[in-house]
Amino acid sequence: MFVLVNLKTYPCDPVAVAEAVRDVDETTDARLAVAPAATHIERVAETGAETWAQHVDPIDHGSNTGHALAEHVADAGAVGTLVNHSERRLKLADIDGTVRAAQRADLETIVCANNPAQIGAAAALGPYAVAVEPPELIGTGTPVSQADPDVVEDAVAAAADVDPDVSVLCGAGISTGDDVVAAGDLGAGGVLLASGVAKADDPKAALEDLVAPL
Amino acid sequence: MFVLVNLKTYPCDPVAVAEAVRDVDETTDARLAVAPAATHIERVAETGAETWAQHVDPIDHGSNTGHALAEHVADAGAVGTLVNHSERRLKLADIDGTVRAAQRADLETIVCANNPAQIGAAAALGPYAVAVEPPELIGTGTPVSQADPDVVEDAVAAAADVDPDVSVLCGAGISTGDDVVAAGDLGAGGVLLASGVAKADDPKAALEDLVAPL
Amino acid sequence: MFVLVNLKTYPCDPVAVAEAVRDVDETTDARLAVAPAATHIERVAETGAETWAQHVDPIDHGSNTGHALAEHVADAGAVGTLVNHSERRLKLADIDGTVRAAQRADLETIVCANNPAQIGAAAALGPYAVAVEPPELIGTGTPVSQADPDVVEDAVAAAADVDPDVSVLCGAGISTGDDVVAAGDLGAGGVLLASGVAKADDPKAALEDLVAPL
Amino acid sequence: MFVLVNLKTYPCDPVAVAEAVRDVDETTDARLAVAPAATHIERVAETGAETWAQHVDPIDHGSNTGHALAEHVADAGAVGTLVNHSERRLKLADIDGTVRAAQRADLETIVCANNPAQIGAAAALGPYAVAVEPPELIGTGTPVSQADPDVVEDAVAAAADVDPDVSVLCGAGISTGDDVVAAGDLGAGGVLLASGVAKADDPKAALEDLVAPL
Repeated sequence: MFVLVNLKTYPCDPVAVAEAVRDVDETTDARLAVAPAATHIERVAETGAETWAQHVDPIDHGSNTGHALAEHVADAGAVGTLVNHSERRLKLADIDGTVRAAQRADLETIVCANNPAQIGAAAALGPYAVAVEPPELIGTGTPVSQADPDVVEDAVAAAADVDPDVSVLCGAGISTGDDVVAAGDLGAGGVLLASGVAKADDPKAALEDLVAPL
Repeated sequence: MFVLVNLKTYPCDPVAVAEAVRDVDETTDARLAVAPAATHIERVAETGAETWAQHVDPIDHGSNTGHALAEHVADAGAVGTLVNHSERRLKLADIDGTVRAAQRADLETIVCANNPAQIGAAAALGPYAVAVEPPELIGTGTPVSQADPDVVEDAVAAAADVDPDVSVLCGAGISTGDDVVAAGDLGAGGVLLASGVAKADDPKAALEDLVAPL
Repeated sequence: MFVLVNLKTYPCDPVAVAEAVRDVDETTDARLAVAPAATHIERVAETGAETWAQHVDPIDHGSNTGHALAEHVADAGAVGTLVNHSERRLKLADIDGTVRAAQRADLETIVCANNPAQIGAAAALGPYAVAVEPPELIGTGTPVSQADPDVVEDAVAAAADVDPDVSVLCGAGISTGDDVVAAGDLGAGGVLLASGVAKADDPKAALEDLVAPL
Repeated sequence: MFVLVNLKTYPCDPVAVAEAVRDVDETTDARLAVAPAATHIERVAETGAETWAQHVDPIDHGSNTGHALAEHVADAGAVGTLVNHSERRLKLADIDGTVRAAQRADLETIVCANNPAQIGAAAALGPYAVAVEPPELIGTGTPVSQADPDVVEDAVAAAADVDPDVSVLCGAGISTGDDVVAAGDLGAGGVLLASGVAKADDPKAALEDLVAPL
């Protein structure tokens, strides 16, 4: 299972969370990574934790003020980027352009989407993975696998229909190790986490609990 | 072949073009339709020409100022809508929402996209058809089938891979009847036209020339 | 006082509301108008009610699919347009472009904004009027003049500072004639209304109640 | 005069340009600063050069994936941020929100705009400065002061009308020291530069030439 901790713009210490990600990663078969804000990528990557960007723009070197360039993110130490997160929705043409820009800089991509139909669409763009985030579960604390297991199974089926090589992550409603196991049982290859780890008093303990049942 | 004439915001008489579309439609096996601006849908539909909207928003009845509601467009006489035209690009979630809104009001949808990868993505959303508009051909007068036939064949293949029921239209670089025939030979089920008919001195003659070789 | 009834995409009969606006307008010194969806502008204008668009795009005749052209809206019978409504927020450059496009077609403009600072900014673009819509009051039923009278007075002062010729409307929290009077006492030159009239069982009676104290 | 070098996503060495900015700043009365991409702010600020962000989002700490938080940018060492650059146009409400977010983190703001009317609007939001970038001059190499001096004078007048404390920068068509002097003569308090310095073989020599006539 791939476990990606999205730090968003939470008031957390990104380096401390990254160190927890790095340390717990060494104790488990799961693959752990952390996605800090752009300004923190370099310092987070220096911890040795696997580092992802939260966003990259569909651009190349040139006249682009206030944009995130794939090469900048990669040079700072990131190995992948989230794309089209529910808090940063993109035009279809820009999701495609971002996946291309990321490939150019050897970044993996996880394209987020709302439902199985959009997951199929995202899979058609050839990303490393897709992540299903049902809007009705975001931020509720209800695990997707419990509230609406069909959406995960349908997303897995929709992605497999279009491109069986694309992994499907579960991107909302994950807070315990049992949720992670349940997501895997439904066919997910990983999970996106956020506040449960980033805002925990002890991020390392939170991560250890999450990977314990794996 | 399906031939849809997009009137954009050209300085043309939408009713005159619609009458030409209606009259030429009766003389050919091709299916002809016209897409006027929202303010003109009702008057255009009253001509008896098959009428499409240029855009519909992913909304329902409610507090939406300055939006195009599928039901309004359908009540005014439209039978379908363009979605995600290159001049009105949408977020992936909004393309999906628009296809759902259109289905709710019994409108057909043609989702436009730039390249085969995006065409596959668009097809995964379950529209009536998709239209490939390679940006490098838009407005050039060079027929897509001549400049870059691979893009049409690849788009047809990409859509068929995802959903064989989705028709693929050719959405740029069509100006003659031979272009329409060539698009059909590459697997396209129709074409999007714009200035060649809308800005013609004699729209009816322009349409007759286009459908003559069919 | 200027009273503009925004029909949004409410499930109402736009012609029936327009007839009520027209009839009540003849009985009062207030100026009444109605803003239907684009597809309904022509039929609403034919009632004789003063008709406004809900949105116009910053474009000219040309290659603009799915956009609202100022000339189309004016030809259909509208005399003005809302701009930057809270449900259709625009980029600063596009608000400016829309005000210019509207002027070109002899449409009046009401630019909406959230707070006094933005009202000052909107006034600097030279519209006919600005409308202050504090986000915390939209849709609450609490009259702005009662909940937060300072925001109206501050908006009036901010607009006057920049351009004393620009009228300030009160765009949220108006549902009774007393609210309209209170808005006027705070310096507003009019009000934007929506569901209170558009969704009323008897729109004419609702409008009569609103203008009765004027 | 304030001279801000915008590195955009040019293929330059941001630290080398920052060192040139720092060194030349010590030799002149002009105030020099550099605006790198978000991933480079920390390393650029460590050179001792005055560092600006290219963009900040109108957000607070919280659930905002892929956004630039004012506090992150300030903690990384930036003292200000560009807002609404022509390559990153924002909604009016978001320009206002960004100016507030920047104030919260003690960042100065320069709000860019196209023409005198928008400059007046930008000035009404209370930024540190505004920058006028006539679209017809961006990237042409023609100095704004020579091609269209009225636009600078009109922008200075429009800003002064609204808020005399807001400085006006000249944001397009500056490449020589004479251009900087001419901009100052028209009332500008500074200039935005980009490729002329960022892509120069010797950024330090380019900056020395620019400030020599001051």
